[in-house]
Amino acid sequence: MAPKCETIELKTNRIEALSDGIFAFAMTVLIFSFEILLEQPQYTDESALAAALYNMWPDLLFYVESFIILGVFWIEHHRQFHFIRCMNLRALFLNIVGLMFIALIPFSTVIVGDYGHMRIAAFLFEANLLIAGLLFYFNWSYAVRNSMLTDSGLTADIVGLYKRRNLIIPVVSLFAISVSYFKPLWGTILYFSCPLLF
Amino acid sequence: MAPKCETIELKTNRIEALSDGIFAFAMTVLIFSFEILLEQPQYTDESALAAALYNMWPDLLFYVESFIILGVFWIEHHRQFHFIRCMNLRALFLNIVGLMFIALIPFSTVIVGDYGHMRIAAFLFEANLLIAGLLFYFNWSYAVRNSMLTDSGLTADIVGLYKRRNLIIPVVSLFAISVSYFKPLWGTILYFSCPLLF
Amino acid sequence: MAPKCETIELKTNRIEALSDGIFAFAMTVLIFSFEILLEQPQYTDESALAAALYNMWPDLLFYVESFIILGVFWIEHHRQFHFIRCMNLRALFLNIVGLMFIALIPFSTVIVGDYGHMRIAAFLFEANLLIAGLLFYFNWSYAVRNSMLTDSGLTADIVGLYKRRNLIIPVVSLFAISVSYFKPLWGTILYFSCPLLF
Amino acid sequence: MAPKCETIELKTNRIEALSDGIFAFAMTVLIFSFEILLEQPQYTDESALAAALYNMWPDLLFYVESFIILGVFWIEHHRQFHFIRCMNLRALFLNIVGLMFIALIPFSTVIVGDYGHMRIAAFLFEANLLIAGLLFYFNWSYAVRNSMLTDSGLTADIVGLYKRRNLIIPVVSLFAISVSYFKPLWGTILYFSCPLLF
Repeated sequence: MAPKCETIELKTNRIEALSDGIFAFAMTVLIFSFEILLEQPQYTDESALAAALYNMWPDLLFYVESFIILGVFWIEHHRQFHFIRCMNLRALFLNIVGLMFIALIPFSTVIVGDYGHMRIAAFLFEANLLIAGLLFYFNWSYAVRNSMLTDSGLTADIVGLYKRRNLIIPVVSLFAISVSYFKPLWGTILYFSCPLLF
Repeated sequence: MAPKCETIELKTNRIEALSDGIFAFAMTVLIFSFEILLEQPQYTDESALAAALYNMWPDLLFYVESFIILGVFWIEHHRQFHFIRCMNLRALFLNIVGLMFIALIPFSTVIVGDYGHMRIAAFLFEANLLIAGLLFYFNWSYAVRNSMLTDSGLTADIVGLYKRRNLIIPVVSLFAISVSYFKPLWGTILYFSCPLLF
Repeated sequence: MAPKCETIELKTNRIEALSDGIFAFAMTVLIFSFEILLEQPQYTDESALAAALYNMWPDLLFYVESFIILGVFWIEHHRQFHFIRCMNLRALFLNIVGLMFIALIPFSTVIVGDYGHMRIAAFLFEANLLIAGLLFYFNWSYAVRNSMLTDSGLTADIVGLYKRRNLIIPVVSLFAISVSYFKPLWGTILYFSCPLLF
Repeated sequence: MAPKCETIELKTNRIEALSDGIFAFAMTVLIFSFEILLEQPQYTDESALAAALYNMWPDLLFYVESFIILGVFWIEHHRQFHFIRCMNLRALFLNIVGLMFIALIPFSTVIVGDYGHMRIAAFLFEANLLIAGLLFYFNWSYAVRNSMLTDSGLTADIVGLYKRRNLIIPVVSLFAISVSYFKPLWGTILYFSCPLLF
């Protein structure tokens, strides 16, 4: 027989608050991918600054992409927890491990922003998103399998729909990894399709 | 027929929590515009430290200005969501894109604090605020147009008043961009008028 | 006649959430006062690392002190908002300006940790706390004067007690500024008395 | 007679929000233990980047470990506050001091990630966790002793179980300190056993 909620039913409001905090920080800390922030003022004429800002375009591209990916993950999280009524210890840990990979995204973003043309950087970024995506998928299926969901308003259709939606990022990641093997940068920008698929 | 709330009515408390986290972090991370934080201790006599602190006045000026601008945006957000009852997927994404430009403000603040006398830095800062302001305006009009608002206590007057208020920052931005074309620094400090207009 | 709550009564839960986020971040970002974090690994033998860690004691001292001061401010904020029922625009701005000085505390802490023996650094730190303390005091008196408080459980005794408590930090600050004129470091460590006075 | 809740019963929702913010930020800021983030782009060929990433394995190891430890602390905090009904001033301060050591964990993690083979770095990390663990234990026993707990659903069994659980980290820390005296790195990785013991 599968584990249910804990004997003491902990409400989910605090795991939501922790998650919202981690998402908010991860999204905001993305600005540190702009290396210019770590440099001392050194551009003495306007054209040098303009060139420096212009050369930041890969950083900006990945800032936008990662912000949107984090937004997609957050929306998935929000929707899952709309129906998750309670959790047990294993579910809590699964969630925390998922958040660990969310918190890694700003790191992968810096690496891919600096070295996006190298296969290993693209792979790091895509593997990070693949694992985070799978963990979110497992979180939902674990909750479904172990009767941790609320009854009100939940139908088998929604359960299936959310399963499929939670697979979008893993599937895009597998595809991106394949493309990046040949063209590193091309694979990494495939994630811009996520909001559309979503 | 315009889209309404989602079939499954997601509460707005979590988008509020995410937004509050992003605002709180963006406001606090503004202190990194003080370059002195990134330097090793190096001032051996008091007059050198005093001079270094004194030379930080543009950083301080923009710290104060950006903190207040973020405060104005936060108040607008707070007020909008007092009346927004629910959201659909498009509204959520619109919101997240708005937050993406909020999270960029500390970056623009660093640039304008270091290079405020250059046209491109002033323009970057003002364009950031212009876009964030427009997105907040669109967020409100989208919610109004698509019946996502609560009924209780909402009048046509409030709807119109909030529309006008959400246009303050875009209008000030356009004006600031024009002024900055001639005098970069002068344009950027126009935003101090926002709390008064507000 | 004094201004009351806004016509549209905004709840205080979001200003509480924003404040909690700013406090949480300001408290956590204090660790960046340890310069060692910004250095590349460079200590090759254990005694060099031990010496470097040992030399961080002023940083650690001010980390502890500022964390506790932020804790005291947070408790004051928490207590004030236990009774504040609603706010108007002016009260919101007063609050945001108060938070601006809270968010500056990690900055002042870095400066005083590095240059605590210099008068200007001590003064910067103490002036920051003086202003933040006064703004918290004004926040409470403004709310009291403008009927923004809840009735339930509030007595004239509490109003007076909270006024006096909110003056502890400003009074300690004035005393610290005087002492620091003669002995910079001595003044700055006077704040350790706050939890006791409290 | 032991102190009870404050005369004015402050709700615990805000200390929960502050704690969630500090935990979320401490967990996210752990990524700064990857030194590569502070470097300018400098790897011009893929094998150099691959080597740099590969050499980060101790940073990654401690990132994972500290994230999980913070998760364990957060779960303990969550569970304690499920039953804590209210707090007095002393309990609030005890909590804030506990959070002070939580906020230090990213700092200790950076040190142990860089110098994990040195006894002093291992000891710093383990002492940090020992003290944080003891403060969490004291927080629970203080609340139990001073009738700050809710009645509903709380049994003597739970009180005892939570006491024992809150001792897991201190006990593992003492064991780790002993092991680190002989093999610094071995002691520090003992914490991976916490989720299992938990």
